Amino acid sequence: MWIVPEKEIAALMTREAAFDAVEKVFAAMASGEAYNFPVVREAIGHVDALYGFKGGFDRSGLTLGLKAGGYWPHNLETKGIINHQSTVFLFDPDTGRVHAMVGGNLLTALRTAAASSVSIKHLARPDAKVIGMIGAGHQATFQLRTALEHRDFEKIIGWNLHPEMLPNLEKVADEAGLPFEAVELPGMQEADVIISITSSFDWTLGADHVAPGTHLACMGTDTKGKQEVEPALLARATVFTDEVAQSISIGEAQHAVAEGLIAEGDVHQLGAVINGTHPGRTSDDEITLFDGTGVGLQDLACAAAVVEMAIEQGIAIEVDV
Amino acid sequence: MWIVPEKEIAALMTREAAFDAVEKVFAAMASGEAYNFPVVREAIGHVDALYGFKGGFDRSGLTLGLKAGGYWPHNLETKGIINHQSTVFLFDPDTGRVHAMVGGNLLTALRTAAASSVSIKHLARPDAKVIGMIGAGHQATFQLRTALEHRDFEKIIGWNLHPEMLPNLEKVADEAGLPFEAVELPGMQEADVIISITSSFDWTLGADHVAPGTHLACMGTDTKGKQEVEPALLARATVFTDEVAQSISIGEAQHAVAEGLIAEGDVHQLGAVINGTHPGRTSDDEITLFDGTGVGLQDLACAAAVVEMAIEQGIAIEVDV
Repeated sequence: MWIVPEKEIAALMTREAAFDAVEKVFAAMASGEAYNFPVVREAIGHVDALYGFKGGFDRSGLTLGLKAGGYWPHNLETKGIINHQSTVFLFDPDTGRVHAMVGGNLLTALRTAAASSVSIKHLARPDAKVIGMIGAGHQATFQLRTALEHRDFEKIIGWNLHPEMLPNLEKVADEAGLPFEAVELPGMQEADVIISITSSFDWTLGADHVAPGTHLACMGTDTKGKQEVEPALLARATVFTDEVAQSISIGEAQHAVAEGLIAEGDVHQLGAVINGTHPGRTSDDEITLFDGTGVGLQDLACAAAVVEMAIEQGIAIEVDV
Repeated sequence: MWIVPEKEIAALMTREAAFDAVEKVFAAMASGEAYNFPVVREAIGHVDALYGFKGGFDRSGLTLGLKAGGYWPHNLETKGIINHQSTVFLFDPDTGRVHAMVGGNLLTALRTAAASSVSIKHLARPDAKVIGMIGAGHQATFQLRTALEHRDFEKIIGWNLHPEMLPNLEKVADEAGLPFEAVELPGMQEADVIISITSSFDWTLGADHVAPGTHLACMGTDTKGKQEVEPALLARATVFTDEVAQSISIGEAQHAVAEGLIAEGDVHQLGAVINGTHPGRTSDDEITLFDGTGVGLQDLACAAAVVEMAIEQGIAIEVDV
């Protein structure tokens, strides 16, 4: 088997490779070639940790396995290591033997960033120029960097509950040589594309804060109770997601569905747009909204890509098991 | 992290160590210190494979992780490797980081064998002399060997659907210097302890084939539809199990419960007997029946024991991840 330690991922994995892997696996999910297993997620009753498994199988890419790990909220303060800890395990689908183990921390950030950019590629207006960020934490910088690499945006605007974090976004804008402006929420009407990436449990972005023709990628809601945007916005928008079952139960769409504003049938797979079996955006006035809930297959696809690169470059550790 | 390859397990892990680990974790499950996560089990639609995860957490032993793998029915014929393939992954419950990876194939056989012997220790009559085996496959030899190590049985009797396999049992009897006799099913009335370990989907051992005072360990039923003994036998017996929820849904008790012969409340945790919170057997005439369904915590407990031994003996491979 092959091992790719966490510390090697930064030099190996590119945002481009993550983008390609995620785009491909979303397409495979929509065509039925790939599916995610039921998610296991447990509050284990020890140091407030959440732990679990996200598994799946992609028949087209022959990728089988799981991401295991979770959230250890006191890691940083008590041990100086990051709170999100995960590891990806790949198995040989022909034999059931373990094939590879890959550090999953940076991969998780990259695959989440890739998902919003894949949605922008397939759903944003071709002439989109202004990107708006709701959220300015560590993950927000990943989302923004990947987005800037895939579209020629001309301006970045940003809002965060704690404005003192906005310099995180400004730094990414500076690196890209683009102007950055802090705005109030109604100022988001200037944006052609909006990415929300917060841990909010109440909506902040209202339906009136979004101009016609905008594409939104809501990336923060991955748990029952979390919420980033006003449910009325989903009723106005054409709604896409990575996985419909998650979108309506733990994703941003959970609230609009619960309030009867939209139904499960109103939520479409982004992969169907990639495959061409759903038309995606059909007018310049249409609001499109991608509900990114995060699926195990994204992690497996990125891990499979990184293992291939690590073997090629002689960085993967081989262990005879 | 530490890696213990499959090929090292045979020299490292003893039936005794597996017995101790399983006894301890059954007790921890009954006291609420340990619990198993929901099981994921998927027919992945590739080479007829079944794949999934059995995870859990034992707060008393600080053991967290999962067994991943499954059943690849064509492995042996097409690749010359065994059909059951699994790997155990342990995590540090204080940080969420991966701690160890252990080959799970032999461990699975040993932990299953340990479970029936733990049930014999706590539920069989002290004067039990004759052990009966229903089933004579590879796993049956594991069950029998472990049982003989923990009790001074004086005779072994055996039945198998395909009698040509009975020499498997006879060989184990010979090694132990004990007489072996092939019997028809009614002949099982001679046994004081019976272990059933088959892949049957219809019962073979009838209620009339079992004498008062017998202890049965039914180890083969771990899936909806499988069945080894007549449901009326469970109504006559005091029923114990590793995990009640599994016993009544995928274990031997599923049929007696479905037929209304017993209720969920009639199925007791073996761990409660180990802990002394359930009296266990209360008379020499009582039939006791252990429904061994197999839980992830057995695998984790055995893997944790083997990792400790492998580190001590300098056999574990250390990888900086």
